[in-house]
This record gives sequence, structure tokens and C-alpha cells, in this order.
Amino acid sequence: MLLLTEGHLGIFSSKTAASLIRYCPDEVAGVVDSHFAGRCAGEILGIGDGVPIFANVKDALLARPDTLVIGVAPVGGGLEPAWRAIVLDALRAGLNIVAGLHVALGSDGELAAAAKASGVRIFDVRESPPDIPVATMRATEVRAFRVLTIGTDCNSGKMVAALELTRAAREAGLDARFIATGQTGIMISGKGIAIDHVVSDFTAGAAERIVLDDGDADIVFIEGQGSIVHPGYSGVTLSLMHGSLPHAMVLVHAAGRRVVRKFPREVKLPTLSEMIESSESLMRPIFPSRVVAVALNTLGLSDEDARRALVDAERETGLPAGDVIRNGCGPVWNRVKEAYDEASHRNLEARPHSSV
Amino acid sequence: MLLLTEGHLGIFSSKTAASLIRYCPDEVAGVVDSHFAGRCAGEILGIGDGVPIFANVKDALLARPDTLVIGVAPVGGGLEPAWRAIVLDALRAGLNIVAGLHVALGSDGELAAAAKASGVRIFDVRESPPDIPVATMRATEVRAFRVLTIGTDCNSGKMVAALELTRAAREAGLDARFIATGQTGIMISGKGIAIDHVVSDFTAGAAERIVLDDGDADIVFIEGQGSIVHPGYSGVTLSLMHGSLPHAMVLVHAAGRRVVRKFPREVKLPTLSEMIESSESLMRPIFPSRVVAVALNTLGLSDEDARRALVDAERETGLPAGDVIRNGCGPVWNRVKEAYDEASHRNLEARPHSSV
Repeated sequence: MLLLTEGHLGIFSSKTAASLIRYCPDEVAGVVDSHFAGRCAGEILGIGDGVPIFANVKDALLARPDTLVIGVAPVGGGLEPAWRAIVLDALRAGLNIVAGLHVALGSDGELAAAAKASGVRIFDVRESPPDIPVATMRATEVRAFRVLTIGTDCNSGKMVAALELTRAAREAGLDARFIATGQTGIMISGKGIAIDHVVSDFTAGAAERIVLDDGDADIVFIEGQGSIVHPGYSGVTLSLMHGSLPHAMVLVHAAGRRVVRKFPREVKLPTLSEMIESSESLMRPIFPSRVVAVALNTLGLSDEDARRALVDAERETGLPAGDVIRNGCGPVWNRVKEAYDEASHRNLEARPHSSV
Repeated sequence: MLLLTEGHLGIFSSKTAASLIRYCPDEVAGVVDSHFAGRCAGEILGIGDGVPIFANVKDALLARPDTLVIGVAPVGGGLEPAWRAIVLDALRAGLNIVAGLHVALGSDGELAAAAKASGVRIFDVRESPPDIPVATMRATEVRAFRVLTIGTDCNSGKMVAALELTRAAREAGLDARFIATGQTGIMISGKGIAIDHVVSDFTAGAAERIVLDDGDADIVFIEGQGSIVHPGYSGVTLSLMHGSLPHAMVLVHAAGRRVVRKFPREVKLPTLSEMIESSESLMRPIFPSRVVAVALNTLGLSDEDARRALVDAERETGLPAGDVIRNGCGPVWNRVKEAYDEASHRNLEARPHSSV
């Protein structure tokens, strides 16, 4: 696949592209971004060494792609005007399109016609399935231990933390599943529901449904969305919390970030302790849940600064803190595993003697 | 208009019908509900003396209606099977349809065809306008003092409190507006957006937009939705709080209710003090706001029990409490007015001398 980032290539600004390079490297043929053409993704992102960046679709055909993925998730989820011509080029060149925008490209007359003419398909992964119910706490019925990543802000590493923890749990021999709740997670895992595209009365119900779908696992890691202090998206976040009803939460924070990112007003982020207190308070009346660890995203910091940020986070919260990319999942996973083991132990004890 | 409640007539179970009888009495020709046919609405609801209840549309035509309103808001917002035949009868008899369901009746082939054949219209008031943006705290830009009703639960009186306070503020000579956020409020006021039908990424943006639309008023009363402790709808509630950014909140509670109503699991409601603390905490990082009064819905209680419930609420919260229907808006409105006056005073003081 080709990743379209036209003008936006960056670890945060094109998070879909960056995540596909990180998690599906064998499937990425290159990036289309005329602003960075001729260089390789690794130079810009720190990941993706050897992934070529092309000026346009025509040049990129050399890499023999079969699909173009929209690699940017713009606020509001529209198709940027500059992208239309590129998408049309791709369709005419016989590439399928994978998009995670709020607008459905498959419903766009011009694009749909071009797809039809070329005999290719447009996949809008943010489209939600029909008949999602209102949430009724059915997530509590599954056997899986439920872990939700929550964040102080958007675009801080909640999906990455959930993916890395899933990998760690699998390495520990558990049937662990990643539950995608956003477009990029869906592209990586091949399933899930983009809950931010669901009608708000049914958003918690969507979270509930995808938990039920993977409820037979030992442990599930649910990709967090937004933040309870993000004025635009806080409702999505709370719906996810109350629909998925996690046993444990992992707090994700981009080290050093002090205000909501890319927001027209200055909104100060709460401290980690305040976030933990608020998040646990919101769960308490419905399904008490604890924040058990902090996943700090120390991208861009020196090793020394990163180490200090982790020590500070541990001191402030009294919880283990780790950067799952820089240092691996160790401390965070260990604490999640403890919580999982405790819950399994309780379940065994609670089981009637006759069935043991 | 005729109000269809078929089998559900009741002050809570058909809240749309009950509210239209309360706030638009001159426009109500009767109720269609075969379970209660031959009686009058007042006997069942305590309001609507003289509003006849008909067994079917044919009988109801005697009252010369021009519109049938779906008077029930079922969980999930579907068209109950029993209602389809009644709606078809109404369309064939030349009545317009007003509906606030999640499913759009105007997009239902059979119903749309019947409407076309009769030359009448189907109004789906829950359909939202296109191009709602992600919220960016623009609600703070308006001159209006913003009051939001919040509740411990759904279906407790948030809309009624907002409507009654609007009336009280108008009687006090202010340019006061009611801002509808749900289907019934929209039917009563003729405008607004049903925010629970908006895609979740844009739900706070919808709340922001309707506040901006009435931002030139002196004071606006924003109809609350759901509750932050309702597992199905909490995200809608938080989106509304962070989109509308109220200066003051009025807490609404159905006296004596201890668990979330009509919910398959038992979810205990927090105490009033806990609700106040949680709600103010959720606002604090973004736009600090205070709960200034309690609107207690004492429906069904004796006068003595209602009086005691109000005294208890005042003692627990330290705030004025009143039942806006039973006793009028007095104590609640007085406290809201104080908050309004304080804010106006601050604004005057903050104004540069040159412009005074």
C-alpha cells in the first residue's frame, strides 16, 4: 500500500501513516507526499528506514502498490482539497482506496465513478455497522480481563500502548486481543468500530459491542480515544469508558505536553494524579476501575530527560511508569499482569466447589 | 395535532406527549392510545384535562387534526411495530407526521410513499444539520449568560426545569431563550439540535452551535441530556457540558429515585452532593462552572413529603432547592438570577472606562 500524507508527514501529524509503517511494515510500498519527495520516511519519522517518499501517484507506481491509504486523520475528518486529485490519480491507476475519514469517499459521486471505471474498491473504515444498541453494561458479562488505555490528550500514544501491551501479553502466553476503536487501529487490526463516527446515543453501545466480540479472550486491550478534558472529544472518551467497562486503565501521556494539542484555545492538561482521580471517579458509580500504570510517551526527549520524566511520573502517581516504545512494556505490563492475575484468582475462588 | 402514545401513555413513559400537552396545550387535539381510549389525558397524566384519548386515527379525525406526533421516545429510537399501521392510517387520512426517532421515518419507503400519495410531509426533528464542526470552546464568545440543567438520570425533568426558568427570566424582563437539545424540546420551541443523534465527534460541536445561534440573548437555558452516570448516555451528557460551557448549572433530580430508571442493570444514583462534585470537576479543567441550585422533581409525592424532600436537598447541598412545577421557580430562579447579576457586574467592571 501507498500512504498519502501530502504535506502532513510527521509522527503526530500523519499518525495513521506512521502507525501503519510501525505495525504493518511489510505491507507499505511507500509514501506519497510532494513536500518530502525523494527522501525516505525514516528521516522524517524516525521509523520507516528505506520506505520511499514519492512526489505523486504516478512516480509511486514503480513500487507496484495495489492500494492507497489516506494516512492523515484531520480534525473534522474531511477530504482536503489537495487530496482529491491524488485519490483520483490512484483510482485511475487501478489502486483501491482505504480511508478513515468522517466523510465516506465511497459516497462521493466523482470518486465512486472513478472506482467503478477502474474496477477497484473504496473502503471507508470509519463507517459503522447498523443496529448498534444503547449500551447496557453487557461488557461485564465477558470472561476477558478488560484493559483500557486512557489519555491526557488526543494523539499521545493510546493506540500504541494498547498494541504493545497486547504483544507483551501474547509473549506471556495469554490469548490477548487488541480492540480497535479508531480508524488507524482498524486498519492495523482489520476489525473494530471507529466509535467517534457513531451517533452519540450509541457510542457506548459500539464500545460494548466490540468488547463482546472479543469477550472470549483471556485479556483485551481496548484502544483509548480522546481525553475527558478535550473540549471537542470528551464525550467520545466517556462513552468508551462506560461502554467497555475496563477492570484496569493505563494512563497515557505525551511527556512534556502541557496543553491540549492543536486546539485553538489554550486548555491546560491536568496533572497525572488529577487525571487518575477524575478517571476513577467517573468509573466509580458504574463499574469501579483503577488506573494501574502510566505509559509515558517520551518521543523527542533525550535518554536522560526521558528517564527523569519516568521517575517523576512514578513519584507523582505512585504507579509504575514506562515508555512502551523506548524501553519496552516491562514495568507497565508487569503491573497489568498483576491485576490480571489477581482478578483470575478472585474468579477461581468465587467459582462454586462443585465445578472445580 | 394528535399525540400517538399507543400503550405508553404516562408522565414519564410518554414524555414527549406529556410535555406537548403541558407546553403547547392549544395545539393538542387529542391522544391516540387504544389502551386508554374514552378517557381524558388529565386522568392519566395529571395534566391535560379535557384532552380526549382516541382508540385509533379514524376516531380521532373527529377532532380535526392536521398532524400526528410520535409522542414516545423509546430507548434506541426505533419505530415500534404497532405504530407503523397507525402512522400509515394517519398519512392516508392526510395528516403530516412529526417524529423524533433515531430512525428517519421520511426515509422509510412505505411511509414516504404514503406521504407522497396524500401530499403531506414527514418531519424528522432528530435529523441534524450538515457541517457541524468539532467543538472549540466558541460558546465562551457569546454575550449570553449560559445555564445548563444537568440531571442525576434521564427522564427526570431537565427540559421542564429549563423551560420554566426561561419563563421566569422572561417575566423578570430579560431576553431569555430556551435552547433545545432533544426531540421534545425541539417540538416545543421549534428549533434546536437533537444532540444525541449527532455523530459523537461532533456532539459537543452541535451543542456549541446552538449556543452560538442564541448567543445574543441576555441569558440562555440549555436543556440537559442524560446523566454523567448513565452507562448508555454519559458521553452525550459530557459533550453537552463541554460544548455549551455553562456559567452555571442547575441540578435536576427525580425525588426518591435511587437507581437509573428503566435500565437492565441496577446502577445506584450518586447523592446530590456527589453529583455536584463530579459535575464541577468535569468542568474545572476547561471552563469552571458551579451548580447553583437544585430543581427537585417531586411528582407523585404528597405535599408534606415533597416539602421534606426539598428541605433534605437544601440541607445536603447547601443550595436552594425547589420543584419548579409544584411550587414555581422562586428559589431556583432567584439563585440563578444572583449568578447572572454577579456575572453582569463583573463584565461591567471589566469593561474599559473609555467605553462606559
